[in-house]
This record gives sequence, structure tokens and C-alpha cells, in this order.
Amino acid sequence: MRESFHERLDELGEQLADMAQQAGAAISGATTALLTADLALAERVVEGDAVIDRARSRCEEHAYALLALQAPVATDLRVVLAGVRIAESLERMGDLAKHIARTARRRHPEHAVPDPVRPAFTEMGRICTQLARATELAVRSRSLTLVRSLEESDDEVDQLYRELFITLMAPGWAYGVVAAVDVALLGRFYERFADHAVGVARQMSFVATGRLGKSD
Amino acid sequence: MRESFHERLDELGEQLADMAQQAGAAISGATTALLTADLALAERVVEGDAVIDRARSRCEEHAYALLALQAPVATDLRVVLAGVRIAESLERMGDLAKHIARTARRRHPEHAVPDPVRPAFTEMGRICTQLARATELAVRSRSLTLVRSLEESDDEVDQLYRELFITLMAPGWAYGVVAAVDVALLGRFYERFADHAVGVARQMSFVATGRLGKSD
Repeated sequence: MRESFHERLDELGEQLADMAQQAGAAISGATTALLTADLALAERVVEGDAVIDRARSRCEEHAYALLALQAPVATDLRVVLAGVRIAESLERMGDLAKHIARTARRRHPEHAVPDPVRPAFTEMGRICTQLARATELAVRSRSLTLVRSLEESDDEVDQLYRELFITLMAPGWAYGVVAAVDVALLGRFYERFADHAVGVARQMSFVATGRLGKSD
Repeated sequence: MRESFHERLDELGEQLADMAQQAGAAISGATTALLTADLALAERVVEGDAVIDRARSRCEEHAYALLALQAPVATDLRVVLAGVRIAESLERMGDLAKHIARTARRRHPEHAVPDPVRPAFTEMGRICTQLARATELAVRSRSLTLVRSLEESDDEVDQLYRELFITLMAPGWAYGVVAAVDVALLGRFYERFADHAVGVARQMSFVATGRLGKSD
């Protein structure tokens, strides 16, 4: 029974890593759709979110079945519980990518992102895609070595988000209210995406140490 | 041992209900601070968030101790797990109230919210305070009768949020970019607060039925 438990736990890990991979594809696609005003790609990201939602339900069912049937203790218990919360964070990351893609779709054929803030969004998209990839690797390897670098990347996204507001609220902003609101909300979606990636990393470290990192 | 388990479970329920009460006080205070540009009140809400964060850590420790020491099964297990997730949602509700209070503080002595959207924020604040109160009662009574009404209130907040954008993006918006960005983000904070309250309700219904409601 123990062997079968660990096999099923490994399956849960695989499912979570696949979800992280999907969240990474979603944020990468959403960023490209946003920066190139690519309607078809935006649509694919929006529609693809349902796949991540279903994957989260499957992970939860899997985790609760493990808990209910096998009443794991100690480390095994922590791993299963962390799995439930990781699935939740990854689903939110998918939702946030969907919100970004929806903004691209709403403004098409216009660009939602005016020229002065394109570099910031290019960079936030790149870092968030990397963060999703790092969470995928962290989950696949159950490794903590990536956690520190995830937190540093999150700080970079926070900094870009703050700079965005400085640009946006400067008297020289020439792109009007609609673009400003889009940019502010888009910035927040990336910032939250990065936060959730760090949340996943913290759950991984909880698995390893039994202690949660500091939350916001 | 069973009796002691249920006593400790009841304690967890009390802690969560207290957190919901604090989240309600926070959103109520944040809304008043926002609508009256009350700096001292905004400060209190911002500082008070640490209390909710600590309460969440205590709830988690309590829940994990219950799981690790007593390996509950079936309904008991579900209640404990739901408790962990409810604590997470309530902490996020506190964070969102803090974000609102910070916006009030940042704009003081100006008002962050221009006159045309004051009624919408008054209403969102009222509904969100009610939602927090309803989650408190739902947790205290472990009752599902409130869940339906929570979902209806959430729909109302979503509708107010959509209307806010119509006002904001209309050509007649005369309050500039900074106010528009504030209003858009503030609207999102209330909208997310209401979502999390519904998340708490769904966890309550998971406790009772073993099935999660649909997530966004």
C-alpha cells in the first residue's frame, strides 16, 4: 500500500508540473498576443484556460482521494496538502494569463500597450514565463534550489510594476485614460502572476521544511 | 481523544470566524477611509492587517497540528482542509482591504474617488462588508443557507465593477489618468474581495457536501 501511495503521489507531482507548464505557455502566449495584437493567439489563450481549470479539479480530486483513502502522516501529508495549494496557485496563474489575453482581444486591432511601456511588458512577460518554468522544474524535481531565484525574479516584477505607475502617472502620459487603465490592470496581472509563482515555491519549501515562508 | 479533536476543531472554527470578523472590520474601515479621506482610519486599517496575517498563521498551525497528530478522516478531514483554505481567503480579503486603505492614504488630503463613482464605491463597500459578515456567520454556524445569498451579492459587485469601467472609459470622464487608474484598481480590489468571500462559502459547502462549487 505504501508503494502504491508513493506512486500516486508521484502522479500528483506530474499533474502539477504539467499545470505549471500550461500556465507558462499561457503567460507566454498572452504576452505575445498582447505585444503583437494577435487576436487568434489571444483567443487560444482565453479558451485554453479551461484546460488548466480542469487540471486543477483533477489534482484536487487526486489529492483528496489520497488523503481520504490512505490517511498519510508527516511528510507525505505535507506533500499532499502542498499539492492542493500549488494547484490553486497554478489555476490562478492561468486565470491571470487569461485576463491579459482578454485585454489584447478587447483592444484588437489596436494595441493595448502604448510604445513607452512596451519594454516593461516585454520584460514582465519574459520573467513571468521564466517563473512558471522554474515552478515547473521545482515541482518536478521537488527541489528548493530554485526558490531563492524565484523570489528575486518576483522582486524584479514588483519593481517593473512600480516603474509602470511612474510612467503612467507622469504629466507627460499622452495615451489617455483607457490605455492608462489597461496598463495599470495588466501590470497588476503580471505582478500577481509572479506572486503566485512565489507562492508555489513557498509551498515547495513547506514540503521540505514544514515551515511556511513569509506571506505578503 | 475524539472529544479533544472536536474541541480543537471548534477552536479552529472560532479562529476563522474571528478572522472573518476582522476582514469585515477592515473592508468597512477601508471604505470609510476612502470615502471620507480619513488618514488616521486608513493608517489603522493598513497596520491592522498584520493582525489578520498572524491569525492566518495561527489557523494554519492549528490545522496542521490537528492533521499531523490526529490523522482525521472523512468529514473531519474535509473540515480541517477547508479551514486551511478559508484562512487563506480571509487573509487575502484583509490584504485587499489594506490595498484600498493605502490608496486612501496615498491621495490624502485629496479624495481618491471622484464624485461620479462615489455611489458605486459606497455600494461595493456596503456589500463587501455584508459579505464578510455573512462568511463569519457561515463559519460560526457551519451553515450553508447563506451560500446562495453570498453568490448573489458577488454578482452585484461584479455588475458594479463593470459599470465603473463604463463610467471611467466614457469620453466624459473629466478626472484625469491618475484618478482613473485609482478607480480601476480600487474596483478590482472590491471585486476580488467579494470573490474570496464566495470562495469561503464554497469551502463551507465542500465541508458539507464533499463537492466543490464551480470556480472562476
